[in-house]
Amino acid sequence: MSGAAFDWIDAAHDHRRRAGLVRTLRPRPAASPLLDLAGNDYLGLARHPEVTDAAARAARQWGAGATGSRLVTGSTELHAQLEAELAAFCGFEAALVLSSGYAANLAAVTALTDRTTLLVSDAGNHASLIDGCRLSRARTEVTPHADPEAVRAALTGHEGRALAVTDSVFSVDGDAAPLGALAAACRAHGAALLVDDAHGLGVLGDGGRGAVAAAGLAGDADVVTTVTLSKALGSQGGAVLGPARVIEHLVNTARSFIFDTGLAPAAAGGALAALRLLRREPQRSRRAREVAATLHTRLTAAGLPSVRPDAAVVSVQAPSPQQAVRWAADCREAGLAVGCFRPPSVPDGISRLRLTARGDLTDDQVDTAVGVIIATAPAG
Amino acid sequence: MSGAAFDWIDAAHDHRRRAGLVRTLRPRPAASPLLDLAGNDYLGLARHPEVTDAAARAARQWGAGATGSRLVTGSTELHAQLEAELAAFCGFEAALVLSSGYAANLAAVTALTDRTTLLVSDAGNHASLIDGCRLSRARTEVTPHADPEAVRAALTGHEGRALAVTDSVFSVDGDAAPLGALAAACRAHGAALLVDDAHGLGVLGDGGRGAVAAAGLAGDADVVTTVTLSKALGSQGGAVLGPARVIEHLVNTARSFIFDTGLAPAAAGGALAALRLLRREPQRSRRAREVAATLHTRLTAAGLPSVRPDAAVVSVQAPSPQQAVRWAADCREAGLAVGCFRPPSVPDGISRLRLTARGDLTDDQVDTAVGVIIATAPAG
Repeated sequence: MSGAAFDWIDAAHDHRRRAGLVRTLRPRPAASPLLDLAGNDYLGLARHPEVTDAAARAARQWGAGATGSRLVTGSTELHAQLEAELAAFCGFEAALVLSSGYAANLAAVTALTDRTTLLVSDAGNHASLIDGCRLSRARTEVTPHADPEAVRAALTGHEGRALAVTDSVFSVDGDAAPLGALAAACRAHGAALLVDDAHGLGVLGDGGRGAVAAAGLAGDADVVTTVTLSKALGSQGGAVLGPARVIEHLVNTARSFIFDTGLAPAAAGGALAALRLLRREPQRSRRAREVAATLHTRLTAAGLPSVRPDAAVVSVQAPSPQQAVRWAADCREAGLAVGCFRPPSVPDGISRLRLTARGDLTDDQVDTAVGVIIATAPAG
Repeated sequence: MSGAAFDWIDAAHDHRRRAGLVRTLRPRPAASPLLDLAGNDYLGLARHPEVTDAAARAARQWGAGATGSRLVTGSTELHAQLEAELAAFCGFEAALVLSSGYAANLAAVTALTDRTTLLVSDAGNHASLIDGCRLSRARTEVTPHADPEAVRAALTGHEGRALAVTDSVFSVDGDAAPLGALAAACRAHGAALLVDDAHGLGVLGDGGRGAVAAAGLAGDADVVTTVTLSKALGSQGGAVLGPARVIEHLVNTARSFIFDTGLAPAAAGGALAALRLLRREPQRSRRAREVAATLHTRLTAAGLPSVRPDAAVVSVQAPSPQQAVRWAADCREAGLAVGCFRPPSVPDGISRLRLTARGDLTDDQVDTAVGVIIATAPAG
């Protein structure tokens, strides 16, 4: 037996260790004592009894798994119901549910491009959009972050199909894309626009209908949106929203849809219950934005550099990867879970604490969080 | 508002329609009257009360979603338990659970290759391995199906890292890869071997430990395996199994792991219960192989061309895509759900009925299935 084939991994590990970039899984118990400002459960619905009950009921009624590709045995009436209600809520003609947001982005980017297509991709886009571009056969032009004029320039002179892709809310800094100006740039050149609204759904727009609805673009014939079911909807999965012909095309051609088992019924049922809850209680999305504004105002007042949040992500810069790790560890020691983004997860190489402004946090919890973050901040 | 950006889709749709290749989702009810030989629920565990109860309990105990990346808040003690028991059962040092088998294959192929690596990929490999090769930066050499000598030839003369990738059981025809000879070819050249055991786990090997265990390769220092939790284990998700340093490397570098929400607790709980059930009732895997052998023997005796099954997939050739669709529809009309594989899901362009030899089928159900398939077969 040869054991040398993976010896190169030891050198990669040493390199990470010396750079302070080793990541380790830290499994959490079911009842964590930590105050959670790290997860993406923006509305606190992952633990809501209506949502967990619906997930549990779906597992018992439909089975623990979907048993096959959505094209074979993996489509249930529960998936169809979720797709219909999600499309209607967000203002689109049709929706397609996949097993993750990552799979949804791969599906949309690869199915809507071919070798002749020009892809125009924002430099701050999420890894799943970037991987979609890599997996596609199209030529990709990366434009500077949140720069509609650069998108316009990239499209100028291109003959044939083009697709611009952008996050609606960028996951690292929580800033919003200029969707209106991007759509105008695309339309001036007959290009389509794909928006990943993972961090907008449930947080932005009327009652949480998302950033694309807020920009007045939902349902437009040249706009496609992807969302996740695993953030504001507290479950698992992703979806593509768009014109019916686009969704029909994805069903027929998107490899990350066709060659994957359908989303588990429990995840579909949980997401559907969360969607109905959000429809009934639209104030949940406003509260998340309020908490984000409060966190930003108070951290900025304490001298901590933080981008003004456009949604529910608040990003606070750290001097170095090592200090970011130490800061997050000190927060954890004090009972607060915060995200810690380091290279290679950050496109600009700047390490950050990443805070999630959950809409179910009380004012007292927000006070506690702010106090801990300030008290544990690295000496400036 | 411009509507023309997606007009090209209408032409693509017309082309599919004329070729008889339009796919449509057909949502099923919770209590389907059909006898199911189409799904991948090889052991009939997706509906087993122990499995669905465990999924339901996990949703209530841990929440409807994992709330974040496994590296942030998405790792629970339930994930860790599943990983430990799965690795131990299959005979590997460590395991990493992802949200799908597709994501697991992307993770393994991309994280274990770089621009200097030679990837050697079987021509019959599953789409998720192919997409992993496309997404990687490595040069990929595609070798003829199930041909260890071709793998040996491809590796000859290559300096530096190399990774050979293969399905253990090919999903279209259900034939098995020559794993021992492939491992020998890899070792002769210091290459690593990645085996997708999606259709082997639960069906092949001692008590369903999989094709890699059956070949005596489980736990070897230069072998990595991927499995799904959505086939024999009746749930959702995928996993990578291998040496601890390989798994640690994936945690740190695999983009389809890092940039995805962790698997929903209900799916992890369901898969863990199924794994324990399989450990307790090892005869389930033998029964699936028996059913497959019976289906093959009887269909072949009736003059229907069918590949001798090495696992629990039985593939029956159809004269054309249109006749395959009609055959499957006639089966359905008679109460039997069968898979129908057409281009572009089949590498050789030959359309097929694809039957799943579920281990929980009774002899009477097997009789019924054989009778319907023969009675509805296209005139030769």
